[in-house]
Amino acid sequence: MRIEILCTGDEILTGKTVNTNYSHIARRLEEVGLSASWGTTVGDDRAALLAAFRQAAARAEAVIVNGGLGPTVDDLSQEVAAQAAGVDLVLHEPWLARMEEFYRRRNRAMPPNNRKQAMLPAGAEFIDNPIGTACGFAVTIGGARFFFTPGVPREMRRMLDEQIIPRLLAMSGMPGVTRLKRFHSFGIGESRADQMLAGVEALAGPGGGVKLGFQSHYPQLETKLAARGADAAEVEARLAPVAEEVRRRLGNFIVAEDDATLEGVLLGALRARGGTLAVAEMLTAGGIAARLAPLPAAEGVFLRGVAAPDLARLREALGLRGGAGEVSPAAAHAAAAALRAASGASHALAVLTALDPGEDRRELGGTVCIGIAGEGGATVAREARLLGGREWIRLGAAELGLDCLRRLLSGLPTDEPIDFERR
Amino acid sequence: MRIEILCTGDEILTGKTVNTNYSHIARRLEEVGLSASWGTTVGDDRAALLAAFRQAAARAEAVIVNGGLGPTVDDLSQEVAAQAAGVDLVLHEPWLARMEEFYRRRNRAMPPNNRKQAMLPAGAEFIDNPIGTACGFAVTIGGARFFFTPGVPREMRRMLDEQIIPRLLAMSGMPGVTRLKRFHSFGIGESRADQMLAGVEALAGPGGGVKLGFQSHYPQLETKLAARGADAAEVEARLAPVAEEVRRRLGNFIVAEDDATLEGVLLGALRARGGTLAVAEMLTAGGIAARLAPLPAAEGVFLRGVAAPDLARLREALGLRGGAGEVSPAAAHAAAAALRAASGASHALAVLTALDPGEDRRELGGTVCIGIAGEGGATVAREARLLGGREWIRLGAAELGLDCLRRLLSGLPTDEPIDFERR
Repeated sequence: MRIEILCTGDEILTGKTVNTNYSHIARRLEEVGLSASWGTTVGDDRAALLAAFRQAAARAEAVIVNGGLGPTVDDLSQEVAAQAAGVDLVLHEPWLARMEEFYRRRNRAMPPNNRKQAMLPAGAEFIDNPIGTACGFAVTIGGARFFFTPGVPREMRRMLDEQIIPRLLAMSGMPGVTRLKRFHSFGIGESRADQMLAGVEALAGPGGGVKLGFQSHYPQLETKLAARGADAAEVEARLAPVAEEVRRRLGNFIVAEDDATLEGVLLGALRARGGTLAVAEMLTAGGIAARLAPLPAAEGVFLRGVAAPDLARLREALGLRGGAGEVSPAAAHAAAAALRAASGASHALAVLTALDPGEDRRELGGTVCIGIAGEGGATVAREARLLGGREWIRLGAAELGLDCLRRLLSGLPTDEPIDFERR
Repeated sequence: MRIEILCTGDEILTGKTVNTNYSHIARRLEEVGLSASWGTTVGDDRAALLAAFRQAAARAEAVIVNGGLGPTVDDLSQEVAAQAAGVDLVLHEPWLARMEEFYRRRNRAMPPNNRKQAMLPAGAEFIDNPIGTACGFAVTIGGARFFFTPGVPREMRRMLDEQIIPRLLAMSGMPGVTRLKRFHSFGIGESRADQMLAGVEALAGPGGGVKLGFQSHYPQLETKLAARGADAAEVEARLAPVAEEVRRRLGNFIVAEDDATLEGVLLGALRARGGTLAVAEMLTAGGIAARLAPLPAAEGVFLRGVAAPDLARLREALGLRGGAGEVSPAAAHAAAAALRAASGASHALAVLTALDPGEDRRELGGTVCIGIAGEGGATVAREARLLGGREWIRLGAAELGLDCLRRLLSGLPTDEPIDFERR
């Protein structure tokens, strides 16, 4: 089925706002086994909108329109949709009542121009928006079904998942239940993961229905299984053996699944054992603390962060006496042990980094040393050589430090080589 | 003049990559007084590309095509451009020689499929790419001039500024020299800045040629002056009085101009006086350190960062004895003074934050207290109430802390109210 995405609005057209709604919609379509075949962007302009609707109608069977449903005069989607469909705008009484109620509950009078948001093309199918004042709707223009969605990202996302995608799947004749299973890993590059997971889709059984995909967000890799079936039981039956095999093959490198994160998993593991954490950093300078401390799971767990630009100043900040020496696993462990003692945390993580000399460049390397001091004398002292320039090494060092701690807390080996490391 | 932007590639079409090239191109057009009237996205697909070229040719006078110039089989832009223009592909010998030289200098053999990148539509105008192997080119399809640019962002950006925009300005009959002047401010919202700067464009003189615009990146606001003239001297003559007036009206709230940043200005001011810096943080937990420490200007200036979740633990980490008390300007100053003494830095900044009770929500408020201990007993103790939820307060607190330090170092008042503050 040919599906197009049509984004409207001057903010998007002029580049003032980056069009993340487009990429979200396109990605979600891929994840349920559909795909976008064309994207169009036009501004808040009657003639351009009308031309865009007609051209999309001539090419596609379904069109997702985003934006232009607001209360102001430059929001034109309903009006131009009616014109393109050759019908009038009519008041959708139930939505007007819902909006009035929405304002009443907030003890505010509904501004008169909000009434415009309840004017839909005659005969349009109403599509609910449980969290905003811009309802969606669907109309047929030419040979294509147009689905109109609000520009506010969280309203669009919910409407897309709950309302639009089920309708598109029904139109396409595809079984109606989909599920996206995600694995987040650290230490495996996309091409190696692709090789490691060769053939896993076949485990879904003879009917297929599970599609493997990747999204790289260095230093993490996201592995996605998009599963489809007639009902939830079939989806689960197809997905389970594939997911189990992905877990087996990527093994210790999986740091989290679905909406979970490395930081969340690690803080959760600490919290589960009544543990607490302090962090000492050099090149990452506050970056590790800034990833952990703001999370709700960090409350009562994250106790202290210390950052300094070199080992001598870090030792000074940690109250360690004597010469600094070189960045080494032993120095990292000494820093962690001192921080653990000073902060009273059950676990202290130290991430030391020594960049190679010379200016920043793509070939620049660095040595990262991770030290962890934990309960009952549990320790980690790990060294890794990373390449790829200052920023790349900084990102890799933070991830390696967090991952070593996750591995220690999960009873996994902390010295497994990662793909980004040069031995 | 009607200009369209046509982005190609499966990564963009499927949403795997967010289309920041589109927004960059559209924004740059606006900044030189042109504008995009339509955006199209298609994948690496012959039929879709051909249809997109023809449809854009029918609507526009100029089309900027991005992507599809690479060496692999799925890069189709040259081939489909030739087809749409009704000509053959011919080898551009000088570009082939440049590519061979490019590889020779790196001591590598040119892979055979790179030859494809020197095949251009017959009669095409060659457009140089000084930093990559994908050259640009221009051809006429129907009534429109098509400009082909590489998908690699830095190559596209340079080609756009140096080659495409001058050609578009010449086509549009606009004077050929443009300049964009930017001011970064903290503490003034977009709508108030708009009021404060009412009428400044008129100072460019009777010929006009300076356009005022804003881009909000909370907590900072970017104020842009897009100037145009027959030559550099005319641009400068028009821009100078407007820029001077913007500087006068926004005054102390301007933290940096053009490519400079608040962090860079502040570190530069410290460096100029041989100063050094240490930072203590609560809610921002490493976030301020992580903004400063990675910058080249921080080398030898940033000495220490300390983060803790509450005042009691922060005081402990700073070696302060006795009860914690409440977050207050005095407590912030005490923290800064202790940190200055312990770290040996010439300046210490403490940013303390107390969130109001209750769960995170848009109305959640917090109290931010800034303490600075500097040379010769210079001190700052500033308090501000911010609203807008946890993340909003975190961002505002970091900015307020950095801005107070900038103001102290520049001899400006540190207690001027900001728009985000509730008194």
